[in-house]
Amino acid sequence: MTIRAVIWNENVHEQENEIVAELYPAGIHGVIADALNATDGVSATTATLQEPEHGLSAARLAETDVLLWWGHAAHSDVSDAVAARVAEAVWSGMGFIALHSAHFSKPFKALMGTACNLTWREAGERERIWLTSRNHPIAAGLPDHFTLENEEMYGEPFGVPEPLETVFISWFQGGEVFRSGLTYKRGAGNLFYFRPGHETYPTYHDPNIQCVLRNAVLWAHNPARRIADVTDAPNVPIDAAPEPIEARGRRLHRDGEAGFR
Amino acid sequence: MTIRAVIWNENVHEQENEIVAELYPAGIHGVIADALNATDGVSATTATLQEPEHGLSAARLAETDVLLWWGHAAHSDVSDAVAARVAEAVWSGMGFIALHSAHFSKPFKALMGTACNLTWREAGERERIWLTSRNHPIAAGLPDHFTLENEEMYGEPFGVPEPLETVFISWFQGGEVFRSGLTYKRGAGNLFYFRPGHETYPTYHDPNIQCVLRNAVLWAHNPARRIADVTDAPNVPIDAAPEPIEARGRRLHRDGEAGFR
Amino acid sequence: MTIRAVIWNENVHEQENEIVAELYPAGIHGVIADALNATDGVSATTATLQEPEHGLSAARLAETDVLLWWGHAAHSDVSDAVAARVAEAVWSGMGFIALHSAHFSKPFKALMGTACNLTWREAGERERIWLTSRNHPIAAGLPDHFTLENEEMYGEPFGVPEPLETVFISWFQGGEVFRSGLTYKRGAGNLFYFRPGHETYPTYHDPNIQCVLRNAVLWAHNPARRIADVTDAPNVPIDAAPEPIEARGRRLHRDGEAGFR
Amino acid sequence: MTIRAVIWNENVHEQENEIVAELYPAGIHGVIADALNATDGVSATTATLQEPEHGLSAARLAETDVLLWWGHAAHSDVSDAVAARVAEAVWSGMGFIALHSAHFSKPFKALMGTACNLTWREAGERERIWLTSRNHPIAAGLPDHFTLENEEMYGEPFGVPEPLETVFISWFQGGEVFRSGLTYKRGAGNLFYFRPGHETYPTYHDPNIQCVLRNAVLWAHNPARRIADVTDAPNVPIDAAPEPIEARGRRLHRDGEAGFR
Repeated sequence: MTIRAVIWNENVHEQENEIVAELYPAGIHGVIADALNATDGVSATTATLQEPEHGLSAARLAETDVLLWWGHAAHSDVSDAVAARVAEAVWSGMGFIALHSAHFSKPFKALMGTACNLTWREAGERERIWLTSRNHPIAAGLPDHFTLENEEMYGEPFGVPEPLETVFISWFQGGEVFRSGLTYKRGAGNLFYFRPGHETYPTYHDPNIQCVLRNAVLWAHNPARRIADVTDAPNVPIDAAPEPIEARGRRLHRDGEAGFR
Repeated sequence: MTIRAVIWNENVHEQENEIVAELYPAGIHGVIADALNATDGVSATTATLQEPEHGLSAARLAETDVLLWWGHAAHSDVSDAVAARVAEAVWSGMGFIALHSAHFSKPFKALMGTACNLTWREAGERERIWLTSRNHPIAAGLPDHFTLENEEMYGEPFGVPEPLETVFISWFQGGEVFRSGLTYKRGAGNLFYFRPGHETYPTYHDPNIQCVLRNAVLWAHNPARRIADVTDAPNVPIDAAPEPIEARGRRLHRDGEAGFR
Repeated sequence: MTIRAVIWNENVHEQENEIVAELYPAGIHGVIADALNATDGVSATTATLQEPEHGLSAARLAETDVLLWWGHAAHSDVSDAVAARVAEAVWSGMGFIALHSAHFSKPFKALMGTACNLTWREAGERERIWLTSRNHPIAAGLPDHFTLENEEMYGEPFGVPEPLETVFISWFQGGEVFRSGLTYKRGAGNLFYFRPGHETYPTYHDPNIQCVLRNAVLWAHNPARRIADVTDAPNVPIDAAPEPIEARGRRLHRDGEAGFR
Repeated sequence: MTIRAVIWNENVHEQENEIVAELYPAGIHGVIADALNATDGVSATTATLQEPEHGLSAARLAETDVLLWWGHAAHSDVSDAVAARVAEAVWSGMGFIALHSAHFSKPFKALMGTACNLTWREAGERERIWLTSRNHPIAAGLPDHFTLENEEMYGEPFGVPEPLETVFISWFQGGEVFRSGLTYKRGAGNLFYFRPGHETYPTYHDPNIQCVLRNAVLWAHNPARRIADVTDAPNVPIDAAPEPIEARGRRLHRDGEAGFR
């Protein structure tokens, strides 16, 4: 079975900023797709903001096992409908990996239910990423810590819910720390937030970063069949109750009536 | 210090259905307010859908320590602006208690980031509520289990994120189970979901239920001063870094520039 | 890669009680091993209390990917050394599945850090097991609920820590509920507690139960290489610090000294 | 109601090392007791390894609301019986705060169920402690970060279970990070691990550290009456089942028989 990954990128800085264009001539999405396509059992394609429906039609999402998301300058240009569609796909079982500034993307904020804010500084400082949990599948093949010589700083407090697991924590040269790898589950979908990836540095060319992304795709993949009616709240008729019961007391609803929502 | 609780109710069934009107002549919100006002250190008022801004102006929320929410038939009549305001108040430290069918309310869904769906049946069947965690503050004064002779059934799977704690689990006569008491934290705000409370039964007159509501208000209250700029993502200037660093590498942002969001 | 599962059984009731002997002529471990061996990619063997070192030598555990544990009448006959060895193997990455009355086994209690107590009743009553999380890997292929016509009752409160995930909850005919499927992580090892399995009923012959056991073995397996020195707390010499620093202040330890433990 | 805190200290370095004796002439326990006794509603006393039963008789623990624990050189001198008694008191509702090198203490390891190991370095380097969760009760009154100019380094991976909440994360000058403030619940007892506190530095004289300890005592206190039979696993007789049932199937136990454990 091949895991179908889609790397979504707003693809704005690559078009407008020569530093980013030089680092990522095929786009951040291009580099990540290449890294994932070099992984056994993973087939990666890309989608961008500029495509119809941002490249994320209902049909496309239905065939996406894991969606990676990079956004920064154009969060508000993502349509609410597509953001809601992505969240619903996650509930139904699609994996979702939010990269770096995607902490402020519409789908990530909707899935977290929090402000998702943080502090930041663009100084090209050193970041050292530590594992808190040796042998976590997302950390497979990594040393206990590794370094990115130039990165943007993100600092705590990070406005997200307590995760299922804190997999990575970053140390920054300027004195801050950050929970850089966090796992969540939303419905049947696995989520991973991964901090590094500022556009003016070659982060996505780094072998350790590519290793994390590959691991995360494998981890986030839920092989179960996607849940069909993921927001459905079905009435269980009285004569279909698992144990035999009879109606008692007074009622608001008639038999077979749909519930309010 | 007095905890200021506000019970919000859509207040629709009480106006339209004679069963509900008879059970709750002063509204579901009225019964709950009375129960809370009988608690030392708690002062409870009410707010309803029909009031301007649904009774939840920014000024009102700023003076609300814990908000309880009952909604069912009119979820979609709640304005998006008020729902977003409630979520932001929670992030800043306001407690939030979602009651029964509020599982499908706009603020609860926004704070969970999930579909919040379930199965249901209105048969007046017996519900028995079990503690999973003896001596939890929300369970103070309760026996290991207690019974509601007539309740609506809510069944698993319940489409919410894994909670911090599962405090109560319900047994239903018809054969289902449900995680009936769940705690969460969103930003600085404590959240509690509490299942019972169907409008055609006298649930909110039950002493054990009133005990849970009182406990939950005390538990949800965060005495810290509300966070002022709860969605702020401040830049930390390079010369204000905790450790002395110098700018390196190439940059996207100019000094003092606001970040994207 | 084949997952090497070992089913450990105290194997006492099978020898002493004719009901159990009749239900499980090859032992509870025998039935489970057969079910697992029918699974692609799993190779299952057994170990029992009566063998030297209870069949769980250090060498055997080093070659065990997932250990399943059934114990009841002879918890105290398990040597402390073997129990500690099992816990340490879990920390290093071995999966562990505690079955039914193994809630009171030495390794499970040591890994939980709690009393692991519950209420119980042997009445052959009906148990209905509900999924809380559709599409969880451990629930693959299962309906939203399934029934065991005769089982022992275990009731809440269950004295365990809050799990990572509550996967199953049981409804009992006599009115109780129980968190029947719980996931944990201890070090690099995945843990699953699964409630059903009273020795006087044919539970382990049930296809749904066998399905859960198969899923749980696949889920619990950590493919990473076992951690070698899993209790090691190494000193990081000053000249090996990731960032250059110099010793300051007064010291208790000399260079290269081992820490206290 | 006054919260009764007990600070337990092995009290070894103070007797044997002149640096420690000079910093803590009344012992680490003395400084902490003074800080807590300056808190409204808290009454603190001390206990040490050298006292009979290490100062922690069953009667003393029964009257202890929150126990703080400092140990380092003499972990193995703590009797297994007292360590087990402490763990059981936590299950019954006593708060427990493990300080610094108490990560390797017998009660903490027993309550975690893991190796509790880490990396370390005694270089007097700078530690900066960050809040991940603004307005957490344990962080009340603290800035988003504060600094200890000289501390021992503890580095990740830290071999503990995923906490309920990660409240603090430390940055170290030498390049490491550490989850320095972690909350857990074990039975009815609240647990907090707090990292700083190396004996050759004046950490416990620091106002921010004293603020955390005061907050932690208030947070860890469970006002509920202590659970009496905290390891009890009672049989529920068939005629006492919440719902009427009749015995079916074959049985191992006779009526009223105690369960195995």
